[in-house]
Amino acid sequence: MNVALLAGGFGGARFALALAETVGAANLTVIGNVGDDVEVLGLHVSPDLDSVLYTLAGVFDRERGWGRADETWDALETVAELGGESWFRLGDRDLGLHLARTDALRRGETLSAITQRFADAFGVESRLVPATDDRLRTWVETPAGSFPFQEWFVKRGHRDDVDGVRFEGADSARAGAGAVEALESADAILLAPSNPFVSIQPILAVAEIRATIENRTAPAVAVSPLIGGRTVKGPADRMLERMAGGTTPAHVAAVYEGLIDALVFDEADADDASAVAAHGVRPIVTRTLMDAPQARRGVAEAALSVALASR
Amino acid sequence: MNVALLAGGFGGARFALALAETVGAANLTVIGNVGDDVEVLGLHVSPDLDSVLYTLAGVFDRERGWGRADETWDALETVAELGGESWFRLGDRDLGLHLARTDALRRGETLSAITQRFADAFGVESRLVPATDDRLRTWVETPAGSFPFQEWFVKRGHRDDVDGVRFEGADSARAGAGAVEALESADAILLAPSNPFVSIQPILAVAEIRATIENRTAPAVAVSPLIGGRTVKGPADRMLERMAGGTTPAHVAAVYEGLIDALVFDEADADDASAVAAHGVRPIVTRTLMDAPQARRGVAEAALSVALASR
Repeated sequence: MNVALLAGGFGGARFALALAETVGAANLTVIGNVGDDVEVLGLHVSPDLDSVLYTLAGVFDRERGWGRADETWDALETVAELGGESWFRLGDRDLGLHLARTDALRRGETLSAITQRFADAFGVESRLVPATDDRLRTWVETPAGSFPFQEWFVKRGHRDDVDGVRFEGADSARAGAGAVEALESADAILLAPSNPFVSIQPILAVAEIRATIENRTAPAVAVSPLIGGRTVKGPADRMLERMAGGTTPAHVAAVYEGLIDALVFDEADADDASAVAAHGVRPIVTRTLMDAPQARRGVAEAALSVALASR
Repeated sequence: MNVALLAGGFGGARFALALAETVGAANLTVIGNVGDDVEVLGLHVSPDLDSVLYTLAGVFDRERGWGRADETWDALETVAELGGESWFRLGDRDLGLHLARTDALRRGETLSAITQRFADAFGVESRLVPATDDRLRTWVETPAGSFPFQEWFVKRGHRDDVDGVRFEGADSARAGAGAVEALESADAILLAPSNPFVSIQPILAVAEIRATIENRTAPAVAVSPLIGGRTVKGPADRMLERMAGGTTPAHVAAVYEGLIDALVFDEADADDASAVAAHGVRPIVTRTLMDAPQARRGVAEAALSVALASR
């Protein structure tokens, strides 16, 4: 069974791991968000892609929720001592990856090629594809002004309410190498329990990817990032409240209108099943907290059940 | 007493420390070699400037002979794992400095300004000035071909004999900020016991610096890097043998013809005093091995004795 997953960072990485464990790593292609990529100290940093990469490679720092485990911080400490840009926290091992990636980009290698090469080097058997090799950047519109994603998320601690998001460069962005083929040949297309607005939408903003999902033959299933109207991590609940008008599974289903056939959501929100169905989306209720290997595989199995049933 | 020192890396840094301890750090200006600067992983690395900076700041790794003490190597290890450029060894703390410097250069700050700012951040009271803010690169001509300095020195382990050196960009290079003023106002101009060909000559290749020293009013004194015809570290002895015809103090004096009034050299070479004097250069014989604080101050005092005598 071949699975194509659209994923952001933390929740996306966790769910990617669950899928790899469930269908076999080699049968999974992850199409990763690059809208939150950022240039720090002249380095090209891809936080979401790297969270997936580190998680699938088993070197992700789960306590911290980003970056690598067993990390040291000597380089950035020195940068700070010398008055350099140090607002974006980069560990030494993480920096090594950014240095290697940035140098490869400078030499003309595509982000797709580099990402796959790094996944191979880490012994990751899944395919990992950036949504696009072109420059695509998420901006958030807030009452305090318009900010590049990381400036809002990290520098301002995502304290500003978000009225809208836009994806600079999306109009001309082509899909990353193999993304369309993976979606077309997948037995199931999955949307991870990532932030719909700033993790999944920037992937869908690539016209080739959106069109391929709109014209799918395989079922597409999203996993809601909400449990009882709240997110496990991050500002998705506040954003749904403000931009979609609420934080029920039906509000998530509305955001993905026309793009999904089913929505997996938590038992805590079981009462909303009929409201989800009203959007023409099949409700799948299960426990969605991925707090242990068994639990996360349960979420993967629930999401895959639709595809299994349709075979 | 104001002292201006022309210095390369290892020996230059040691001698700079000796001078700072002898005349007071605030009375010392070091004009550092940038001919061995190199771009690694897109970073601007200035090995000689940094050896001086780290030494004056008390964070130099004296055992290793380059880089910082208490260093970690996680970033470069990751770069190597990912197939990136890892021939030039960069520790994590060292990388932090290169990241901060490269980013500042990209923002338009000059190497002179950055270097002084970093020296201030490290609490170094001496002034540290790059020979030039312009691009100046040392190339070595060998039987195996022409190589950029670090490619010959590090990648090829300086195994090739050197027939000549040239300094790319020297023709149009202007002196670093304050270098000429420091030389003009100095009570003594000193040339460190660095490699004459690839540490000191690239500084002298900047026309403004050479002319200022040629037209000096204060005495100029060089310290020979040779002890009994051998260098403590590095290939200067092999280079002198091949390019100057021998490894006595007189051969060093000949390389600096017209630029020095006196040459400090080791007791082991005392017999060469008259040969040095034949070049119109006053011989100063002392123990030159800087293996302990007392010993290195002895070398500094010997070099300064000429200037003190002429006051």
